[in-house]
Amino acid sequence: MNSFGRHFICTTFGESHGVAIGVIIDGCPPRVPLTEKDIQPFLDRRRPGTGDLVTPRKEPDTVEILSGVFEGYTTGTPIALLIQNTGQHSADYEYLRHSFRPGHADRGYHEKYGWRDHRGGGRSSGRETAARVAAGAVAAIILSHHGITISGRICEIHGVVDPARFDEIIRTAQDSGDSVGGIVEVVAAGCPAGLGDPVFLKLDAYIAMALMSIGAVKGVEIGDGFTAARKLGSENNDQMRKEGYLSNHAGGILGGISTGQDIIARIAVKPTPSIETDQLTVTDDKKDATISVRGRHDPCIALRIVPVAEAMMALVIIDTLLSRNRYPPYPKIPLGQ
Amino acid sequence: MNSFGRHFICTTFGESHGVAIGVIIDGCPPRVPLTEKDIQPFLDRRRPGTGDLVTPRKEPDTVEILSGVFEGYTTGTPIALLIQNTGQHSADYEYLRHSFRPGHADRGYHEKYGWRDHRGGGRSSGRETAARVAAGAVAAIILSHHGITISGRICEIHGVVDPARFDEIIRTAQDSGDSVGGIVEVVAAGCPAGLGDPVFLKLDAYIAMALMSIGAVKGVEIGDGFTAARKLGSENNDQMRKEGYLSNHAGGILGGISTGQDIIARIAVKPTPSIETDQLTVTDDKKDATISVRGRHDPCIALRIVPVAEAMMALVIIDTLLSRNRYPPYPKIPLGQ
Amino acid sequence: MNSFGRHFICTTFGESHGVAIGVIIDGCPPRVPLTEKDIQPFLDRRRPGTGDLVTPRKEPDTVEILSGVFEGYTTGTPIALLIQNTGQHSADYEYLRHSFRPGHADRGYHEKYGWRDHRGGGRSSGRETAARVAAGAVAAIILSHHGITISGRICEIHGVVDPARFDEIIRTAQDSGDSVGGIVEVVAAGCPAGLGDPVFLKLDAYIAMALMSIGAVKGVEIGDGFTAARKLGSENNDQMRKEGYLSNHAGGILGGISTGQDIIARIAVKPTPSIETDQLTVTDDKKDATISVRGRHDPCIALRIVPVAEAMMALVIIDTLLSRNRYPPYPKIPLGQ
Amino acid sequence: MNSFGRHFICTTFGESHGVAIGVIIDGCPPRVPLTEKDIQPFLDRRRPGTGDLVTPRKEPDTVEILSGVFEGYTTGTPIALLIQNTGQHSADYEYLRHSFRPGHADRGYHEKYGWRDHRGGGRSSGRETAARVAAGAVAAIILSHHGITISGRICEIHGVVDPARFDEIIRTAQDSGDSVGGIVEVVAAGCPAGLGDPVFLKLDAYIAMALMSIGAVKGVEIGDGFTAARKLGSENNDQMRKEGYLSNHAGGILGGISTGQDIIARIAVKPTPSIETDQLTVTDDKKDATISVRGRHDPCIALRIVPVAEAMMALVIIDTLLSRNRYPPYPKIPLGQ
Repeated sequence: MNSFGRHFICTTFGESHGVAIGVIIDGCPPRVPLTEKDIQPFLDRRRPGTGDLVTPRKEPDTVEILSGVFEGYTTGTPIALLIQNTGQHSADYEYLRHSFRPGHADRGYHEKYGWRDHRGGGRSSGRETAARVAAGAVAAIILSHHGITISGRICEIHGVVDPARFDEIIRTAQDSGDSVGGIVEVVAAGCPAGLGDPVFLKLDAYIAMALMSIGAVKGVEIGDGFTAARKLGSENNDQMRKEGYLSNHAGGILGGISTGQDIIARIAVKPTPSIETDQLTVTDDKKDATISVRGRHDPCIALRIVPVAEAMMALVIIDTLLSRNRYPPYPKIPLGQ
Repeated sequence: MNSFGRHFICTTFGESHGVAIGVIIDGCPPRVPLTEKDIQPFLDRRRPGTGDLVTPRKEPDTVEILSGVFEGYTTGTPIALLIQNTGQHSADYEYLRHSFRPGHADRGYHEKYGWRDHRGGGRSSGRETAARVAAGAVAAIILSHHGITISGRICEIHGVVDPARFDEIIRTAQDSGDSVGGIVEVVAAGCPAGLGDPVFLKLDAYIAMALMSIGAVKGVEIGDGFTAARKLGSENNDQMRKEGYLSNHAGGILGGISTGQDIIARIAVKPTPSIETDQLTVTDDKKDATISVRGRHDPCIALRIVPVAEAMMALVIIDTLLSRNRYPPYPKIPLGQ
Repeated sequence: MNSFGRHFICTTFGESHGVAIGVIIDGCPPRVPLTEKDIQPFLDRRRPGTGDLVTPRKEPDTVEILSGVFEGYTTGTPIALLIQNTGQHSADYEYLRHSFRPGHADRGYHEKYGWRDHRGGGRSSGRETAARVAAGAVAAIILSHHGITISGRICEIHGVVDPARFDEIIRTAQDSGDSVGGIVEVVAAGCPAGLGDPVFLKLDAYIAMALMSIGAVKGVEIGDGFTAARKLGSENNDQMRKEGYLSNHAGGILGGISTGQDIIARIAVKPTPSIETDQLTVTDDKKDATISVRGRHDPCIALRIVPVAEAMMALVIIDTLLSRNRYPPYPKIPLGQ
Repeated sequence: MNSFGRHFICTTFGESHGVAIGVIIDGCPPRVPLTEKDIQPFLDRRRPGTGDLVTPRKEPDTVEILSGVFEGYTTGTPIALLIQNTGQHSADYEYLRHSFRPGHADRGYHEKYGWRDHRGGGRSSGRETAARVAAGAVAAIILSHHGITISGRICEIHGVVDPARFDEIIRTAQDSGDSVGGIVEVVAAGCPAGLGDPVFLKLDAYIAMALMSIGAVKGVEIGDGFTAARKLGSENNDQMRKEGYLSNHAGGILGGISTGQDIIARIAVKPTPSIETDQLTVTDDKKDATISVRGRHDPCIALRIVPVAEAMMALVIIDTLLSRNRYPPYPKIPLGQ
């Protein structure tokens, strides 16, 4: 539920307006050089308040290592990372205590748990992704020692692919109290062939779960994705020579196992549901109401999802990399003997 | 790896050309009326050999219940379902022993495991999905007692949405030794609100993993999916009245939790990679080769994925339904006391 | 629930009087030579009906490999092992349909599931252990390639440690319609140091769970066990020289991690609860009754638990061995750099 | 590894001399009244430094709730509990950096991870149990709402059962630089019948794992335990009348499922391995050495294990209680229809 991974297991906690958020990483290999200074830049990239197109909430997001690191190296024991919450303005959210914001998790939490922490979205806030980014940072640092790099980018904002126009599109939406969606691509380069488990935990299934678990993501595709569904087999297959594959329509994964090519995923990010426009809603005692979501939020959440998507990809790759290593201890007996 | 689910746990086994395939269901509630006759129709829908647009491999796919059912009712103990393999023509596949088929898992399995059962794709064959369908049948039967129904359909074949043209498109591809892809939609109707777990095991993340774990699926979207990424927040939010939601752009899931509306997912199915056209490939001793994949396969695998996608959706829904029931035992103390 | 293991995952199924029992092994390393002939001797050791001190139920217990093995070697895919049930005399058990046998799981299953398969104990029958022994056989075969051997023995029957008297004690109990308990020891020799995970999945905790999960086991101790609780620290500590440990009071495990010495566990096995003597009981409609458990059962179940305890130890050791191998991929950076 | 439980999942972190220790509880039911004041008394009972027979290390062990509780009630989201470390004297442990203490996890961690945090035992320190006690407190509070109470006691110290002599025995050992072991009993009263899962996760197997995972525990028995192995079946079976069971030799568990009687477990606790007497050991560069373990430790660790054993029992019971609730959603169809 709040844990991710089978071998590099991350358990996150914390609400948007609670004391702190954080993550425990269980299963991190020992003897990896690691300090807070290594992790901090990843959080700085995700941090709100660094431009006029993102929420003005100010959070330093300073990460603290509470355990699992000794004299600058990991020990193999759980790594606890803590980020204090400091920029909450909880009183600003009092008007949300009994009303459900359209497009948000508010009503779902209420129905599932019988009540909820309404302040800033509570546990369902995008703030939870800071913990993912912190864990992903540790994963990315280890992956870099294996020659694997993860990088994300915005492909499209509100249907437009020209980056020169992104700013203008977002600003226009913001000025009218509205928001826009976008498409983000994340690529893992340098992965060995043979990652991923067949059948239910295929590498692409694992990536799909990881990326779809980010709030506001409504679609995931691997390689050519939905375009592949419109092609002929002869166009879509990646043919091979002994030097390598001749194309990468598959996005680096076949049969759920990595091919050694770039692993490529794209996600559809919906427009931020928090908008100032009046919307129809209901209250927790089932009365009709109208709501305008004021406060601090991003007119295009896709921008801030880039480092989160990278983090989730890093977590999947480190987990499958560690999983793969279970196999070697079979007897090295040549077949046929 | 070969198990799916946390509460209704399905573990599948079997190769395309082995003795048998099957599934163990652990966690099925007791006292559900269940016989082989209830499950068989689900398998009959998936069965190959029932038309000229699907593989002519003939398999009766007769399901046998080995355990977990006593005097016509489930007992709560593991249900073992067995399907004998009968229609294998393994000798036909000897030419694949050392050559990797483009677009298939052949090379991945070879690199992951050091060798593979090459006959008909072995474990990575679409035949493995018969076990999913058998397990999904049990799930669907239980769901039907809760008023939940799962149904799938083809939305698009090779970019065409008009069903009248599907036959023609597939036949044309088949005649030229090629194949086509398509898009499948699966809907779960009648689900209560409150299903799904927040953060990493969001209902949409779970569905994405489930559907992406089906071979040949390259993309998953929920509700408006990739289209949502091109909309304004004011267009995409589902507003509410006390009678219910005014739209369902979200596809029945917000914040990872079901809203009580129809749960809608669509998947991109790539064109069948097995094509007769000559393709460039390599052998397991790293030599260049050419391959033409003869034998029995479907020119449009999307057609046969419909019941498999329904099965995976049923497995996700039953699992979250059972998960939800963990919660009630908290003290029924009104807040504020 | 019906699965055991994290890396070498065994899922068992089947009732005493159902069609068949069996096990799926998921996570078995590939390229291990394996045939039915390798597994059968393990089942033959557990098999009932081979002496006058064990139940006369006749079961050939012939194991069949349904999947996961190709041309005599494992492929890394799930291994399904099936054992047909043939010697059931279900009608003999009709008198148990509504009465609960003292010392058995009958009433527990009834209360947990709302009903039960009463024939021969159904799922809670000792017959279920045949599936464990089959899985344990595969584990033991792999362990033998790593120089690890597992062996069990009877230490004590009804408080007597002299093996010469075991037969006489059991026969005396049997003749009076009664039964006796005993103590079984199981040793894993040749294990490397470093197996086991700290904190909750300590190797000794894992062994305790594994052995206590065998029906009729009421206690587990590691190394000196309960005797250690009566010693001084200076007597109990295992001191070290560079050639090795000077004693093995710890039973090969310290801090939950193997030391490289023999791993030693002992289990307390209660007397078989099935006895012919009249006992007070109740029926499933809550009426008082008297019961005499006739039929085929062992006067000393400890005898037959030896191969089962070996199997469970083998499953724990293979699982921790595979788990350990996750670690190597950390960067081989010397500390301090 | 560092997580315990399937439904009420506790993940602990922290080293003896790190910044802090703590635990994340995932799966706690919502709407349970909970404050730091409810948890603190449990920690106070475990706390060191409260008598002359326990280690003089002074730790206030003040618990802080970082998340999962809002306005005095749980929300169903992860509860993070933090305990700052304050009483470390790390420099005192420098002499242990390269030498392994006999009877401790030092060497195992070194062999498993390639190095270790040697200060006060690092992760393998008894200090880790404070996190277990904090989590167990939350479990116990919820259980109390269900009429379930958990209580532990010392049964025996160094083979003596008379509590009047415990002080004297421990003091004698302490005065001679030695330590003593003991036996602890823990009882769960008020549990409903039907808790526990059959086969591998039997309630007694689960309890055995939970208790054996506490450092220094070398044996676990349920009910009559090892004594049962020395009895006749006619003596050991618990007969029934409609008013209830006539005895409780089974310790409240049959076939792995609770009977509704008191659940009774006993554990063997070895003498504290830290003793001042000179002992033979080796260093991490494989040289012979002699060691005398000075510093702050308990001459009889069994005393301090009582609240830890209670905590582990509480965690098992809450977890099985939540697990049990998965079942109700089967169709309430009377059998035979």
